[in-house]
Amino acid sequence: MNIQLALDRITLKEAESIVEKVNNYIDIIEVGTSLIKDYGKNSISFIRKHFPNKIILADIKTCDEGEYEFTSAFDAGADIATVMGNSSLGTIDSCYNVSKKYHKDIMIDLMETSKEKVQQLKKYEDAIFFIHLAKDSKDGNLINMFNSEKKLYTDMKKIAIGGGVNKKNIPDILMIKPDIIVVGSAITKAEDINWAASEFNKMLREGVDIHDCTK
Amino acid sequence: MNIQLALDRITLKEAESIVEKVNNYIDIIEVGTSLIKDYGKNSISFIRKHFPNKIILADIKTCDEGEYEFTSAFDAGADIATVMGNSSLGTIDSCYNVSKKYHKDIMIDLMETSKEKVQQLKKYEDAIFFIHLAKDSKDGNLINMFNSEKKLYTDMKKIAIGGGVNKKNIPDILMIKPDIIVVGSAITKAEDINWAASEFNKMLREGVDIHDCTK
Repeated sequence: MNIQLALDRITLKEAESIVEKVNNYIDIIEVGTSLIKDYGKNSISFIRKHFPNKIILADIKTCDEGEYEFTSAFDAGADIATVMGNSSLGTIDSCYNVSKKYHKDIMIDLMETSKEKVQQLKKYEDAIFFIHLAKDSKDGNLINMFNSEKKLYTDMKKIAIGGGVNKKNIPDILMIKPDIIVVGSAITKAEDINWAASEFNKMLREGVDIHDCTK
Repeated sequence: MNIQLALDRITLKEAESIVEKVNNYIDIIEVGTSLIKDYGKNSISFIRKHFPNKIILADIKTCDEGEYEFTSAFDAGADIATVMGNSSLGTIDSCYNVSKKYHKDIMIDLMETSKEKVQQLKKYEDAIFFIHLAKDSKDGNLINMFNSEKKLYTDMKKIAIGGGVNKKNIPDILMIKPDIIVVGSAITKAEDINWAASEFNKMLREGVDIHDCTK
């Protein structure tokens, strides 16, 4: 199981400082959508430059122009890039093909994606499927969301889960055994960032076996 | 009818140079998604700085974090920002509320949005609805796409149309009478950019009455 730290709504310098504090406790650095839209692809190359040996996910949330956007993210130094599951199959195909060409990974964000579409997307067998509670789903609950569509996710090879992950719901998340747990403000907005990250790390490491989904 | 020029997959300097050439023939400058993701919100403020009196649309394609993204786009100088029609109602609500607060406009991109969702979105009466053929819909046809769902769009107050607009389909588009026609590479990749823009302008101005959808 991998911990992906989502960096959002902060400056690049703040992002660097946070990762320096928690580097040993996380597996994947997520350059969040807000960093991409605030600072452009420079946000990806900045993080790559400062953390050359870390897995970097660029949360570019591609909706169209799959080839251009995925190429751009990989060229800037990302190892994984995201496409919206509710975008056209043409777009997802393009993203998938670029990820194969670059020997990199694709994460398909299932936020607001219909059941029928999720079924269709299973043809991308080696994609990472991101079960994602939207930030704007103010009264949503990640575990309930997962449980209501549990069967839909059973035959997916690689699953990421995120959106409101915190210490309270970690035991439930551990039961799901995702390949990646995406944690954001529960670490980045903690009073003691280092301690929070180490606590998450401990809970996850002690809970289940570790395996690297990106290999 | 307004001409929106979509600037995509170019540098900011190239964008500036193109707009300088065609400024008199277009009504809205679109800072394309690729410019946002390549250069961040600096792409919006750059265009605002160089064209202080022009209407600027930021094609940020918000999928989540509506409040943050719309606030950021308007603060950077945009007059209109885009949200995906297939994002959650929570997200679109947030974007709508920010646009009201700032006395700015919201464009809802209907690409890959179900009929049922489009019906729901009509409650945002004063939003601009963008009937949009995806760049990745390689064999798609904008006019056919519109015609197949014609009835769905009849009671929308403000309509934009785009994705593969060219001189050949302009007569059909004029029949639709959209408030905004989004033109991209048919102008930006033309051998003579100035001439191409003037031709589009002439065809549109002579075709229908002009009215400003942003007032």
